[in-house]
Amino acid sequence: MSDRYASFAHTGAGRALVRRLGLPDPPRLRRYRPGDPLIHGPVRLDAAPGGRLREPLATLLATAGIELSTEAQMTSGAPVPGGAPMSGGAELTGGADVATGLGVSAHGEATGARPAPHGALLYDATGITESTGLRALFDFFHPLARALHPSGRVIVFGTPPESCASHREATAQRALEGLIRSIGKEFGRGTTAQLVYVAPSAERAVESTLRFLLSGRSAYVSGQVVRITPADVPEVDWARPLDGRIALVTGAARGIGAQVAEVLAADGAQVVALDVPAAGDALAEVANGVGGTAVQLDLTAQDAPVRLAEHLADRHDRVDIVVHNAGITRDKTLGRMNPDWWDQVLEVNLSSQERINEVLLDRGLIPHGGRLIGVSSIAGIAGNRGQTNYATSKAGVIGLVHSMAPLLAQRGITINAVAPGFIETRLTARIPLVLREVGRRMNSLAQGGLPVDVAQTIAWFASPGSAGITGNVVRVCGQNVLGA
Amino acid sequence: MSDRYASFAHTGAGRALVRRLGLPDPPRLRRYRPGDPLIHGPVRLDAAPGGRLREPLATLLATAGIELSTEAQMTSGAPVPGGAPMSGGAELTGGADVATGLGVSAHGEATGARPAPHGALLYDATGITESTGLRALFDFFHPLARALHPSGRVIVFGTPPESCASHREATAQRALEGLIRSIGKEFGRGTTAQLVYVAPSAERAVESTLRFLLSGRSAYVSGQVVRITPADVPEVDWARPLDGRIALVTGAARGIGAQVAEVLAADGAQVVALDVPAAGDALAEVANGVGGTAVQLDLTAQDAPVRLAEHLADRHDRVDIVVHNAGITRDKTLGRMNPDWWDQVLEVNLSSQERINEVLLDRGLIPHGGRLIGVSSIAGIAGNRGQTNYATSKAGVIGLVHSMAPLLAQRGITINAVAPGFIETRLTARIPLVLREVGRRMNSLAQGGLPVDVAQTIAWFASPGSAGITGNVVRVCGQNVLGA
Repeated sequence: MSDRYASFAHTGAGRALVRRLGLPDPPRLRRYRPGDPLIHGPVRLDAAPGGRLREPLATLLATAGIELSTEAQMTSGAPVPGGAPMSGGAELTGGADVATGLGVSAHGEATGARPAPHGALLYDATGITESTGLRALFDFFHPLARALHPSGRVIVFGTPPESCASHREATAQRALEGLIRSIGKEFGRGTTAQLVYVAPSAERAVESTLRFLLSGRSAYVSGQVVRITPADVPEVDWARPLDGRIALVTGAARGIGAQVAEVLAADGAQVVALDVPAAGDALAEVANGVGGTAVQLDLTAQDAPVRLAEHLADRHDRVDIVVHNAGITRDKTLGRMNPDWWDQVLEVNLSSQERINEVLLDRGLIPHGGRLIGVSSIAGIAGNRGQTNYATSKAGVIGLVHSMAPLLAQRGITINAVAPGFIETRLTARIPLVLREVGRRMNSLAQGGLPVDVAQTIAWFASPGSAGITGNVVRVCGQNVLGA
Repeated sequence: MSDRYASFAHTGAGRALVRRLGLPDPPRLRRYRPGDPLIHGPVRLDAAPGGRLREPLATLLATAGIELSTEAQMTSGAPVPGGAPMSGGAELTGGADVATGLGVSAHGEATGARPAPHGALLYDATGITESTGLRALFDFFHPLARALHPSGRVIVFGTPPESCASHREATAQRALEGLIRSIGKEFGRGTTAQLVYVAPSAERAVESTLRFLLSGRSAYVSGQVVRITPADVPEVDWARPLDGRIALVTGAARGIGAQVAEVLAADGAQVVALDVPAAGDALAEVANGVGGTAVQLDLTAQDAPVRLAEHLADRHDRVDIVVHNAGITRDKTLGRMNPDWWDQVLEVNLSSQERINEVLLDRGLIPHGGRLIGVSSIAGIAGNRGQTNYATSKAGVIGLVHSMAPLLAQRGITINAVAPGFIETRLTARIPLVLREVGRRMNSLAQGGLPVDVAQTIAWFASPGSAGITGNVVRVCGQNVLGA
């Protein structure tokens, strides 16, 4: 489970060798610890003219106590490295009236050849209504491209193409995807880059996402596109957002599931940890560790949904958060696969989850504000040799999210999924060395993720603040090169 | 431009070495030559119960003179390799009443341990209405997984999830993506695998796609999802589908553009080959070679759209097919990029194309039955280091296709794009050896594609038979591992 290469590369001798040989240089990622600020260093926020998100974002950042750097600081001093003129920058980026409303950074003295280092670069691109306007992004990012702290953040905000007023605007907004995915591959040093599409009237629903993406909780999430829809967002205690919530976590005895139980509990949830009877001891340990309860149940049993529903009704009256984490692999090429292996994988990873959702929903056990969260996989997106069964089931999880989101929206319930990439677990530890090394490094962060990275992403979906997030599938893969 | 490794691997000595060392083994792909049959060997067609496509597909195949193998042949004889029982297969695959309507193959004597080899395996999955029904796919493909000729074809037909009657059905239909992408990575030997979503009432619009995907024209297309919508499809002369059509091809002087001009002309189109004045000689050669005309024009000039429109109006009264192939790269990391490089790439690859579309459409030069075809890129899907400008422009092309498709549908015009992967051209020939080798092999076919592969895909979009194909972005990448 340990990445010895990365540990070595972080030593003095290791670092020297890595540089001399041009080996992969996995940065030490900034991960969340309780009490950490959301982000280190000032945040730069700018907008294309007419952007509707600059002011709401500035307000959110101010409320979160984040210092903003002003435009003046950025362009003062000597020419920016790279030698490009800043022509048009001031006009294109919205004017000083908004900028002066923002806080002044402690790094305000920067007058050298480089702009002061930033924790994050945020750009509101909602004002861009045609492709020629995309130049504003160049003007914003070009001088700042090398002015990010390690584990810095790039977030571009746009309008969902499907909500745009014209095809010209939709085209320009869709183009943003190419930019952020390239930045994710280019900036390095642990920087992550995301595109957040905020639907009209969804400006108020953006806070949980902004906080997640800035923080160390999203350390291994990069190159992703998130959609936010209008929603009534309640007051959230950001220190313990899940206080008073009942969270069911399946497959909780070990690995990612155990970590999900821990993170949800740390965020205040009361956890119902579920796993098969054979994993009873490990499950009890997890449940005790998080002050939750354990349920031993084989979810593929015919009566499992009803028994689970009765348990939840008896003990808690409801379940606010359902994390369908239980999943199995039975790898074999299709021509050599036993039919039972097909059935088992489809049953555990997809069909049983559908039955459970239906029984819980039919019995009214998932209240308004409920959260359904699935676990897909890179294999479900890209397919994988020897995993026809697994990839089919995990593609089905994406179908489940997309097809149920509009139905559940009527009941105030969201449904989303994570799609993990290479995560360091007992399973990946068993992969032969060379393959494991390749799998680990083939992403923008040049390392595998940790179970906690998946768990934190699930916790973001689970937050009451994420009422506007539904129908999303977000990869937790360090922007793995594999895809479709 | 030549893949010396593949040429070597195809020799006797090369093949032996490749096998001994476990090196990549790029198969010799079956590519289209005039007069070729659509497919070699019998085609197996089956359906989940209730499938609405089996009969239309059987009729289309019969009309095309393709022999179908029957179910009986497949399951006769000794056990199938892999040892899996065929339990349930007969019930799940639709019954003999339909099967007996199909032609009998010349390979009908197969009674050995393996099923007779097939040219293609087609499965109508539209009858699958919930995830438990996905087992029918296992039952169909498991015994046949190793019974495909080299460059065989796997095509699964489904219902677009967004058109499904229930969320259960939508989930199961979406799951098909995971299956075909895994099959594409698993079957090998030049096999391609695709998922074709046929909307209800679009059954008649499927023929051009069926022919394209079976034939050698789609040699380098794999792991793709195609959507077909209802449309009035005219009678098509499949030998010369573009007879009488006027086709504008930009960037036609060399590379992919020159090949597009050739293929469209071979399919019967009258080609207007366009390129910048500096490429005049090469352009003239292409135009003369295909019996078309040459237009020298810098498309980024302010008056270019109007001059082009006037030229087309004067000479041809209209333009039926517009292939926006012209594109440039100006690679540099964002921090070091010259602003002119950003502007030039966005202008050539995206903005000028939008202006040209608008002028041609405003002047009514693109008639009912018209075809707009763009060229995106893997970089536009996955992003790329050093290509923020290019990736943004190519993601914009995807946005253009998605946003204009519904608008153009009202005028009977389609819009689609290809997204090439690693294609052997002058540009890729300049990539340093090791990087080029990696780029070439990182796909399911273990080789680069040829310009003709992109051109044939464009010709499929251009066909009058493809009236039901709009809003699609199809990768021509041999199922490259890179994606998003």
